Amino acid sequence: MSYPEGHTYNSTMTYIDIQTPALVLDKSKLSANISRMTDHIKSLGVNLRPHVKTSKSIDVARLATADNFGGITVSTLKEAEYFATHGVTDMTLAACLAPSKLDRVAALRAQGVDLKILIDHPDMATAISQHSGEHDVLIEIDCGEHRTGVDGQSSEFMQIASLLDKAPNTKLAGVLTHAGHSYACRTAEEVVGLAETERAAVVDAAERLRRAGMECAIVSVGSTPTAIHARDLTGVTEARPGIYMFGDLFQAGIGSCGISDIALTVLCTVIAHQKTNRTLIVDAGGLALSKDRSTQVLPADCGYGLVCDAEKGTVLPGWIVEAVHQEHGEISSAQPIDFATYPIGSQLRILPNHSCMTAAAYSSYHVFPGAAATGDFEIWTRCNGW
Amino acid sequence: MSYPEGHTYNSTMTYIDIQTPALVLDKSKLSANISRMTDHIKSLGVNLRPHVKTSKSIDVARLATADNFGGITVSTLKEAEYFATHGVTDMTLAACLAPSKLDRVAALRAQGVDLKILIDHPDMATAISQHSGEHDVLIEIDCGEHRTGVDGQSSEFMQIASLLDKAPNTKLAGVLTHAGHSYACRTAEEVVGLAETERAAVVDAAERLRRAGMECAIVSVGSTPTAIHARDLTGVTEARPGIYMFGDLFQAGIGSCGISDIALTVLCTVIAHQKTNRTLIVDAGGLALSKDRSTQVLPADCGYGLVCDAEKGTVLPGWIVEAVHQEHGEISSAQPIDFATYPIGSQLRILPNHSCMTAAAYSSYHVFPGAAATGDFEIWTRCNGW
Repeated sequence: MSYPEGHTYNSTMTYIDIQTPALVLDKSKLSANISRMTDHIKSLGVNLRPHVKTSKSIDVARLATADNFGGITVSTLKEAEYFATHGVTDMTLAACLAPSKLDRVAALRAQGVDLKILIDHPDMATAISQHSGEHDVLIEIDCGEHRTGVDGQSSEFMQIASLLDKAPNTKLAGVLTHAGHSYACRTAEEVVGLAETERAAVVDAAERLRRAGMECAIVSVGSTPTAIHARDLTGVTEARPGIYMFGDLFQAGIGSCGISDIALTVLCTVIAHQKTNRTLIVDAGGLALSKDRSTQVLPADCGYGLVCDAEKGTVLPGWIVEAVHQEHGEISSAQPIDFATYPIGSQLRILPNHSCMTAAAYSSYHVFPGAAATGDFEIWTRCNGW
Repeated sequence: MSYPEGHTYNSTMTYIDIQTPALVLDKSKLSANISRMTDHIKSLGVNLRPHVKTSKSIDVARLATADNFGGITVSTLKEAEYFATHGVTDMTLAACLAPSKLDRVAALRAQGVDLKILIDHPDMATAISQHSGEHDVLIEIDCGEHRTGVDGQSSEFMQIASLLDKAPNTKLAGVLTHAGHSYACRTAEEVVGLAETERAAVVDAAERLRRAGMECAIVSVGSTPTAIHARDLTGVTEARPGIYMFGDLFQAGIGSCGISDIALTVLCTVIAHQKTNRTLIVDAGGLALSKDRSTQVLPADCGYGLVCDAEKGTVLPGWIVEAVHQEHGEISSAQPIDFATYPIGSQLRILPNHSCMTAAAYSSYHVFPGAAATGDFEIWTRCNGW
């Protein structure tokens, strides 16, 4: 079932009419999450360049940029192309890319999109310098996660910078880092410390470039936990958190938000009563919720998601999605489930472990003004793929 | 990047030109897997109604039905609608459904699609009997998995059958079961035993209906492991395996196929060299591979996938996708990886843990005639969502 984009559905269409599984987005929580981060990053004196890889939706991006400078962060070229068609002109692709994608980057730049790309290897600097397009390039600094990025104190870093600086069609736009290892922190104090490590790594790298006579306009940090817990961002020009907009159970588990702040849920329908196991079977399984089990390593393991009543989105204490099959989710409860209260056809909502993974199975959001999934709703579309 | 459907790409476009991550499908392995199952099910004297929930592709379904009676099994109404537009007229939706979806079922049936639906609860029998459409209904029997289905020996089973039998616009089409617990078997002998349990459960249920004077034309069993290991299907009319077409590392791990039979891989590009961990970073992460970790419970844990060379699809011994982030995969090896052999921009292919989950992130397959991902390829599209 599909709905035309940009249309508000009237109140004769209630949540029960939505074909399940479906994404439900609470606009009031989304707006509050966005305001909180915007205010915090403003108070630190840097630009907020929201990462839109979770929502991949122009409507969400418009809210997130409304009170900021307008730039966004993307994780794929498909996102860049999608947001470009919706009028966004200032983007950073915050993942190293295959050299064979430079043509697509150049095509966007030729359309007037200021798309900055990220590299961490001298060979990629050479590939870019030999490419026919004009490119704006950030160097990724590894601040300790050891995923991608170059050590800002290494000679390789200066070699990459020098290659970019000398290439005729290439601009060294700055340095960028991502403290993804903040996800492994279990206390706020740890994250505070890591936020400072992240800041220092990229500010030091920028200073090194400047001492060598090179420009370094952009000094960019990332990650929602470090953005939330950063106390000082001196020398940084912008922050790129993303998951703060929707939140999820993993972020709640590591203290980036409360469970009641999570704006995204999956609406599903009870399709069977499993008497042997005393579970409810719903039509949201591994594809609808994703197989993400990130909360497994946290004190509060949420299985494949926590369960809320459908209408108001209130958490049902002790209820959990215990197992998933491709199209079936098994909901169990600490207390015996009263099947009469949840007949076949009744609906529930699931809080996701990891919003980025869960949302990616869908092409649109059903957006309600508040926590209640009744009355008027809007359809906001999203992009997927690469 | 998208390609028009139904066009063959010429040999000037080699695998290196494919924008990654991308699905690569080996047609010769696919065809061999299809023939093997078709011949085996034929030898047991029953119809093969292939489950298309893995591929969700009309091109794959055409190959799978070519030497069979033409019917398919689907897991969602979206699949049913997609396959109907491509001319498939005999389908079974092998998952219980929300009552609010009966309108969509009726719409397909009104178009001439013989779409059978599945129920396991008296309330759903009542809902169907009160619905304006005419429905063909199978009753799901629980043969021991305790996911969905009713006990074939229970009074509830006969109650559902009786409700369907008496409803004016409803036809009791038969019984269906799925031995999904075969995935927990670790020896072929166990699966052989479970295949017989599955057969007996559904054949006994059918006999019970017939003794009560009701018709039971369809007696349907499922699951790839039990289909492969079934030695006798007396009383069964059809089998519904699905994952046998592509195979995956989990199915290889439980003995349903060999690793060399797996027809689906994810083509990806090296985007970084991680010197600290001595890993290759590729552009296939959690979204491109899925977060499925089903091989974790098997003796050979494959991480997030095993790694092959890109051109020939040969497994690189000891190489594994050890970790994933949203858009990054980390490949490690038992031996130190020679970065010079795998420069930035070089490509690899990943064998997936669970093909159904991995394929769902993509809108199409790049189909090569054999294991080599070079030369001409076709684009086969697929459907997603609900």
